[in-house]
Amino acid sequence: MTYCVGVLVREGLVMIADTRTNAGIDNVATFRKLHTFDRPGDRAIGIATAGNLAVSQSALTFVGEGLKNPDTGNIETIWDMPTMFATAQFVGRAVREARRTIGEGLEMETPAHFDISFLLGGQRAGGRLRLFMIYAAGNFIEATPDTPYLQIGEHKYGKPILDRSVTEKTTLDEALKLGLISMDSTIRSNLGVGLPIDLLTIRRDSVKVELNYRIEAAEPYFHDLRERWSAALRAAHKAIPDPPYKSTQG
Amino acid sequence: MTYCVGVLVREGLVMIADTRTNAGIDNVATFRKLHTFDRPGDRAIGIATAGNLAVSQSALTFVGEGLKNPDTGNIETIWDMPTMFATAQFVGRAVREARRTIGEGLEMETPAHFDISFLLGGQRAGGRLRLFMIYAAGNFIEATPDTPYLQIGEHKYGKPILDRSVTEKTTLDEALKLGLISMDSTIRSNLGVGLPIDLLTIRRDSVKVELNYRIEAAEPYFHDLRERWSAALRAAHKAIPDPPYKSTQG
Repeated sequence: MTYCVGVLVREGLVMIADTRTNAGIDNVATFRKLHTFDRPGDRAIGIATAGNLAVSQSALTFVGEGLKNPDTGNIETIWDMPTMFATAQFVGRAVREARRTIGEGLEMETPAHFDISFLLGGQRAGGRLRLFMIYAAGNFIEATPDTPYLQIGEHKYGKPILDRSVTEKTTLDEALKLGLISMDSTIRSNLGVGLPIDLLTIRRDSVKVELNYRIEAAEPYFHDLRERWSAALRAAHKAIPDPPYKSTQG
Repeated sequence: MTYCVGVLVREGLVMIADTRTNAGIDNVATFRKLHTFDRPGDRAIGIATAGNLAVSQSALTFVGEGLKNPDTGNIETIWDMPTMFATAQFVGRAVREARRTIGEGLEMETPAHFDISFLLGGQRAGGRLRLFMIYAAGNFIEATPDTPYLQIGEHKYGKPILDRSVTEKTTLDEALKLGLISMDSTIRSNLGVGLPIDLLTIRRDSVKVELNYRIEAAEPYFHDLRERWSAALRAAHKAIPDPPYKSTQG
């Protein structure tokens, strides 16, 4: 499994991804799922991947090393894309191409094997900071002020805290904390999601990656965040008065 | 969708179920999913159901009105079962029978249509207070001190709070609060789970249902619990220090 979350607030963008992959429960490994394409002043882009590792690695290779443009015949990479929207279309094309080429080899075993999804976030010089989710068919949706976060992979455990607390006015630091809490909830409930965690932040209109960081298992801040959060939750439910209910039925 | 949770602590048992059913997103209705079989001093039993409504209603009818015992030829109901273990086996048989009879009518369309699961909790005079989860095939598992809660239906959103906070030493009032918080998290994140909520509690060795209650939409305690929980979560993540991270990569 995998869990990746992107949060787009007024101050900027946070992207967080775990690194655990598994083929069955007895074959677990660590792979980076959060990738950056950062050239300060030109573009600052993060891509997080979920789903079949062979397909997502192939797609990511196409993104970085190039795909033939069907109209011009030229090989293009992510660095040639003029806008974030064009980048989303390009990544979608890379996903379709990876599925097509790998699918041929595997004779399209089961569709589930090709079920991947990407988060694409960032800013191109002259454009807006944007966050997209790209589906296996290459189509995509975009985060908006109404729903300022997008998730891929094992998304349900970590959704309640985001639903409750994230708005477009959330600060970048707060968005990072909430993303880490969401990741913590997922790690606690699903063995398929695990440390280390990669994260990046991009401040709006800076057109550069501000923070590109890997949280290792022994990292003290994340450990402290997990402890504080658990302690606060225990205190919170203990502070709620006991239910006053008396039977009304039965 | 549906969400039901049972928590078995030293003091007793809590069972909570929502009441929303839907056939597609445009056909939503309210059905009771938590049912009690309560005869104080003899047995106190709750059954919560998730999955296809036609199958679960049929199975529940077999449980209450009787199934033929294949060995004796006698019609037996849940009231004839000597122990909670025999009750779990009997409910499993009712589930299989419902799937078989309805499946014949529908010529076994797709297996997913028959994917139901039940929570069965309670105590029989002379026996232990127990909590089981019964699968569509009629097999079942039991809650233990290591994992004192079981969930059916849309279980992921409400699992983190249980994973963090429920142990067998949790008090009955606290278990009820935690179950309601778990339900609240689910309701907020999934439209298919909704109020009213039914709940019951059985105090260990009392062999009677202590509380059998329906929480309606306007009910003040649950409204207050939701507000307090949201406020406490906001305060909790704001109280966590901002991340100290500096870029180490990229």
